[in-house]
Amino acid sequence: MSDLQGVRGTRDFYPDEMRLRSWLFSHFRAAAQLHGFEEYDAPVLEHEALYTRKAGEDIVGQLYGFEDKGGRRVALRPEMTPSLARMVLARAGALPLPIKWFSIPQCWRYERMQRGRGREHYQWNVDIWGSAGVEADVELLAVLCSFFDRVGLAPAEVGIRVSSRKVLQEVLDSVGVAGEQFAAVCIVVDKLGKLLPDEAAAQLGKLGLDNTAIATIQRVLGLHDLDTLAAALGDDSGAVAELRSLWALAEGYGLTEWLEFDGSIVRGLAYYTGPVFEAHDRSGELRAVCGGGRYDRLLSSFGGKDLPATGFGFGDMVILELLKDRGRLPQLAGSVQDVVFALNPELRPAAMDVAGRLRAQGRSVDLVLEEKRLKWALKHADRCGAERLLLLAPKEWERGLVKVRNLASGAESEVVPDAL
Amino acid sequence: MSDLQGVRGTRDFYPDEMRLRSWLFSHFRAAAQLHGFEEYDAPVLEHEALYTRKAGEDIVGQLYGFEDKGGRRVALRPEMTPSLARMVLARAGALPLPIKWFSIPQCWRYERMQRGRGREHYQWNVDIWGSAGVEADVELLAVLCSFFDRVGLAPAEVGIRVSSRKVLQEVLDSVGVAGEQFAAVCIVVDKLGKLLPDEAAAQLGKLGLDNTAIATIQRVLGLHDLDTLAAALGDDSGAVAELRSLWALAEGYGLTEWLEFDGSIVRGLAYYTGPVFEAHDRSGELRAVCGGGRYDRLLSSFGGKDLPATGFGFGDMVILELLKDRGRLPQLAGSVQDVVFALNPELRPAAMDVAGRLRAQGRSVDLVLEEKRLKWALKHADRCGAERLLLLAPKEWERGLVKVRNLASGAESEVVPDAL
Repeated sequence: MSDLQGVRGTRDFYPDEMRLRSWLFSHFRAAAQLHGFEEYDAPVLEHEALYTRKAGEDIVGQLYGFEDKGGRRVALRPEMTPSLARMVLARAGALPLPIKWFSIPQCWRYERMQRGRGREHYQWNVDIWGSAGVEADVELLAVLCSFFDRVGLAPAEVGIRVSSRKVLQEVLDSVGVAGEQFAAVCIVVDKLGKLLPDEAAAQLGKLGLDNTAIATIQRVLGLHDLDTLAAALGDDSGAVAELRSLWALAEGYGLTEWLEFDGSIVRGLAYYTGPVFEAHDRSGELRAVCGGGRYDRLLSSFGGKDLPATGFGFGDMVILELLKDRGRLPQLAGSVQDVVFALNPELRPAAMDVAGRLRAQGRSVDLVLEEKRLKWALKHADRCGAERLLLLAPKEWERGLVKVRNLASGAESEVVPDAL
Repeated sequence: MSDLQGVRGTRDFYPDEMRLRSWLFSHFRAAAQLHGFEEYDAPVLEHEALYTRKAGEDIVGQLYGFEDKGGRRVALRPEMTPSLARMVLARAGALPLPIKWFSIPQCWRYERMQRGRGREHYQWNVDIWGSAGVEADVELLAVLCSFFDRVGLAPAEVGIRVSSRKVLQEVLDSVGVAGEQFAAVCIVVDKLGKLLPDEAAAQLGKLGLDNTAIATIQRVLGLHDLDTLAAALGDDSGAVAELRSLWALAEGYGLTEWLEFDGSIVRGLAYYTGPVFEAHDRSGELRAVCGGGRYDRLLSSFGGKDLPATGFGFGDMVILELLKDRGRLPQLAGSVQDVVFALNPELRPAAMDVAGRLRAQGRSVDLVLEEKRLKWALKHADRCGAERLLLLAPKEWERGLVKVRNLASGAESEVVPDAL
């Protein structure tokens, strides 16, 4: 009966879990919409080449790809950005810029199962295309902080570590490492936190970096304030100027409490070109809550004309772990407000009439469809988290009355249907 | 660049299309929630055996199935009911009954492309499990009519054709056709509308039915009122009693205007056992808007203990065609209410402050992130469908004022930030 289990690494959402997911998504949506972002979506299935053309990344090895019945290579999307690029390219020139769009796609990967890592997750994606300034990057940080604020997380609990790909770029330039090694170095550097310094040095050495380059990278990546970075990269550093400008704007939004400069943040995807960031719980127990950055040269990798672009992806799993750890998950009752119950089948038309009246007022009404005892109906109403039980009982209904029981207080009254 | 197109038969949802989808889904949700249904979800990917174990149906030939990297046969779900059955079985006994659940899954099929038939669609699924009476079937019809009502469709435009699998069952019993042929006959009968009577007779003949059986089936399927059906099936017909009881309850809900008995409705899936229905536009131009019915013996086909169950599926494509034809599609503006624009970069922190204040009030604010001219900002605000443009201009800001332009009336005022 293994076919009666879900596919390994996938989740079912029973109503309890669905309520939590809907609650989370509603805050994703609200934070984005308050900042003027519009929702879009793309199919979960794409041509595999959409991902493999940007070769050399972990994401390709973990593609949930397959051949369809027509012999085409297709894949369940591992991330949303390539679909977004495809959509923008399909309407190249026709979309008014800037684009401020968000989406909450389900993304897939195929890899050996690890504890706490599924094969699918939902990922809130928020992107701005067509806006070259650091203002756009700060706007994304504002969306992010507004989300944290909405779900009750404070800067003391969650921090956003910010750097720029330009920091690493300038370091590599200064030690004479050619541009083509850059992406490969970024991918190794992204994993440095998990490696011992010697292992890291060995991996960077394999990419052709000499000891001076490796030492310089390791030193700069260890920096945590902009002034020291400025001293290391020099007064005319574009990276430093960009980050200072980002901080000044973040100040204008009142966001700096959330931010810290962290030279080790480079992000794993090859396509980033400017500011990059990750949000982490301050206790450091969990994986990154979200990550993103600027990727101004993505479209040319698809053969299109580049557009400045910046965005982030924010999975649904780590944030729920974090909120759970902090005791911040809401208690979400079902949506049923009234349970309507007829004590005998003859009263069912009357019960339907009462249910219809309440629904016309916008109330969520569960009508009991089976012959049950009053005791069952009370238990059922309680389990639903309903506010009231409306009872159609022979004696009361003869007098044209409905019995209304407030389930919190236990108070009962008798009401004519018109007054419900 | 074919990899830069979406997979054939799939849709992208740009913000315009996404707004329409969200509008449709919001009415799906509201109609279900008003009737006390709770949302659930399951992964789009399932083991292929979940579908192939109920063999002999069109849906299997059209499965979007494939082998994953671990050599397992998996499929993109063609319909939601098997996933629902899997979820219920996984918690067999632990779920309080009845279950009233709904979902809006994306469903997939792989077939030769036809005009207007994609390879994916979204399908609103509404189901009641654990409730054996026709009350549950009527409750589903109430959800359906409540949805039609919400989107502005009247009984004169949309009708729900109702019958019961028991009608065909009794006809076959009466002509001595054995039970095992029943499912196969249903699948042919479901297509009768597309066949000439002679072709239909030939197909039924191939299933082993004799001429008397075929003539009886064709006659009863042509019936359109319950009294004639009662005359054909006899006074003690369970099918007639069930349908009369359904109509009486529908009367209690005031739904009978929407309903018509139609002996030809049997539905294509083998698993239905009782009342079945389809909604159609009355003009008859489009395919069925939705369809459903009772399927009390599904769980035993999965090796579980049966539970009474009834439900319907309602695709997103035909209803949107219908609403478009009837001129009932809403004009949906973007969500942006205010555009905030700083006339020069020095005023950006002030613009951020203003944007932040408005967002704290719950307003959707698009902050202009680029250096632009006022003319551009006005055009942009108009394109967004915003209500107001809030302008940070040097002279006004020196006096601590923000210029507020009402975009509908053109009226302008100057306001201190605290009064925004």
